[in-house]
Amino acid sequence: MPVTTVLTETLGLRHPIVQAPMAGGGDTPALVAAVCEAGALGSIGATYLTPQQIAEACAAVRSKTARPFGINLFVPDAPLPGDVYPEAAVGRVAPFFEELGLARPGPPPAPARDFDAQLDAALDGGASVFTFTFGMLPPAARDKAKARRLAVGGTATTVDEAMALERAGMDFVVAQGSEAGGHRGTFAGPFDQAAFEAGMIGTLALVPQIVDAVRVPVVASGGIMDGRGIAAVLALGAAAAQLGTAFLTCEEAGVPDVYKQAILGAHEDQTRITRAFSGRPARGIVNRFMREVEEVLPFPLQNALTRPLRAAAAKQGRAEFLSLWAGQGVRMARRMKAADLVATLAEETDAAVRRLQAR
Amino acid sequence: MPVTTVLTETLGLRHPIVQAPMAGGGDTPALVAAVCEAGALGSIGATYLTPQQIAEACAAVRSKTARPFGINLFVPDAPLPGDVYPEAAVGRVAPFFEELGLARPGPPPAPARDFDAQLDAALDGGASVFTFTFGMLPPAARDKAKARRLAVGGTATTVDEAMALERAGMDFVVAQGSEAGGHRGTFAGPFDQAAFEAGMIGTLALVPQIVDAVRVPVVASGGIMDGRGIAAVLALGAAAAQLGTAFLTCEEAGVPDVYKQAILGAHEDQTRITRAFSGRPARGIVNRFMREVEEVLPFPLQNALTRPLRAAAAKQGRAEFLSLWAGQGVRMARRMKAADLVATLAEETDAAVRRLQAR
Repeated sequence: MPVTTVLTETLGLRHPIVQAPMAGGGDTPALVAAVCEAGALGSIGATYLTPQQIAEACAAVRSKTARPFGINLFVPDAPLPGDVYPEAAVGRVAPFFEELGLARPGPPPAPARDFDAQLDAALDGGASVFTFTFGMLPPAARDKAKARRLAVGGTATTVDEAMALERAGMDFVVAQGSEAGGHRGTFAGPFDQAAFEAGMIGTLALVPQIVDAVRVPVVASGGIMDGRGIAAVLALGAAAAQLGTAFLTCEEAGVPDVYKQAILGAHEDQTRITRAFSGRPARGIVNRFMREVEEVLPFPLQNALTRPLRAAAAKQGRAEFLSLWAGQGVRMARRMKAADLVATLAEETDAAVRRLQAR
Repeated sequence: MPVTTVLTETLGLRHPIVQAPMAGGGDTPALVAAVCEAGALGSIGATYLTPQQIAEACAAVRSKTARPFGINLFVPDAPLPGDVYPEAAVGRVAPFFEELGLARPGPPPAPARDFDAQLDAALDGGASVFTFTFGMLPPAARDKAKARRLAVGGTATTVDEAMALERAGMDFVVAQGSEAGGHRGTFAGPFDQAAFEAGMIGTLALVPQIVDAVRVPVVASGGIMDGRGIAAVLALGAAAAQLGTAFLTCEEAGVPDVYKQAILGAHEDQTRITRAFSGRPARGIVNRFMREVEEVLPFPLQNALTRPLRAAAAKQGRAEFLSLWAGQGVRMARRMKAADLVATLAEETDAAVRRLQAR
């Protein structure tokens, strides 16, 4: 049974459950540590943090738990196309800035992210697992992570992507089904619509096809919200289940309360994929900003452009301007403490397996 | 455990497995009867059959098995919009007709389907289960089916659709996830793009949310190809699993060999939703016709327009003009006899449950 793998046996996890990294503030050190203490794997989404902030977040987690935790970075950003003219995109969002009492935005600053410094901070922070998203980790970064003996995993939305990750020596693969909330982990460039759409495979179909194609453990993600979903992906051959949306409504999650309320009130047919907030396709609850903003700048410029708007909207409790990332399982969301959620998920998984046996 | 339901207990099925109705010739009486004899539920997709052909298909099934079987119809077609001008659509496909040596098509005939006569034939044919697709069954039809003591089930792509089916007195609901091959069972009108897209929910997320919302049994469909998938949807709370694509490559399936070969050679990221063949959204393997034809007539006019082309392409072994309906689990397709497939699915399901227990 592939459940005893690097993720559970080597790390000593009690439950085959991973709290998804959620760049953007959801995965506070309090949430990550509580998940780890409860016997699952908590994860820090570190992409939008400076190296200093990454070091601080890791230290904060370590101060609360001695259990293993994970950390995630987006791979280095692709070079921006030469023909980026931000005027239209700025003009499109300017009325929303005005509505929130903000000054008219200027063109977003060119990205100044130092991936290598972020990586060093992430690898020095004491995490046991390093994951990455949006394509392939550069070989030098992979070698560095492996030299520090972290388990390294990449995100795949298709079988080909999973096979490429295995060929590149990754220790495990996160299979991201089309139900998943937040950014699509596709290897496709941010404006390659056809390749992105081809990679929208439902979790139930994606996981066994990846399990058949690679020998490394597969962590299933996308639409898993309770123990029924965890038992289901284990039946499909996954080594563990990764849940994001389910943890966003935990008491410890660092997202605005209006965001938690939006998740708790949303239906399964009220999310869709949008590029409006960051420039990259991501699944969130449909709101006014998603409906009204179509033309966008490439990632990460659009992300930089909309950041002040989202920050102000969070302060003012205006969910219509927030990126309400959430998966298609939203009706199953629950407001709980993280420790209680992990314990509940584990009990529900056992109960689902018992029902299967008794059938 | 909801597995013992009208579908398994009442009907005496040995396995919680339904062969999906596949209007279009896949579900020959030989396939349906072999599935039933193997202890699962075979189904006839009867929408494109005349009442006489429906009676003959049912008689052919009954001549091969005394086990219960199912029959499916699309609900009566919505009235066509007033502004249908077929010239552009005819011109678009005319070169393909020429390429296959066919005469230039004329405007497709107005639909002449007699739903009531089809229904009578379906209910008189000896089936134990009646299912329908594309919305709500008219109350009179429901009452007629129930008076004949058939178990009646409708197709839902969202929780709201499932609840509407339960409120209307249906005995069970088929939950169709976004992975599913063939026509989307959405209640949305054929050109309501937003409602159709909102109903593209992955099976893993859709099934438990429908299970939580209705009391009637839920049959899960979409992306299920082997016993791992069956165990998974049972873990999600489904009463049974419905498989279509998995049965299309059976020896008894009545589709052209080039179609079977296309399924056996396709990857999970090579299907997409198209309206090109019938006018309604349906998932199939991407081929030349799908790539080159975008503007289409409303269902069922487009279906009537392309029918001669598809018939000629089947005869000539030209897969690029066939509607290659298939779900996102295509990599798991196998060429088997139907009886062997059902037995294998049942063994695999038990094996998946045993692996879960042993974890």
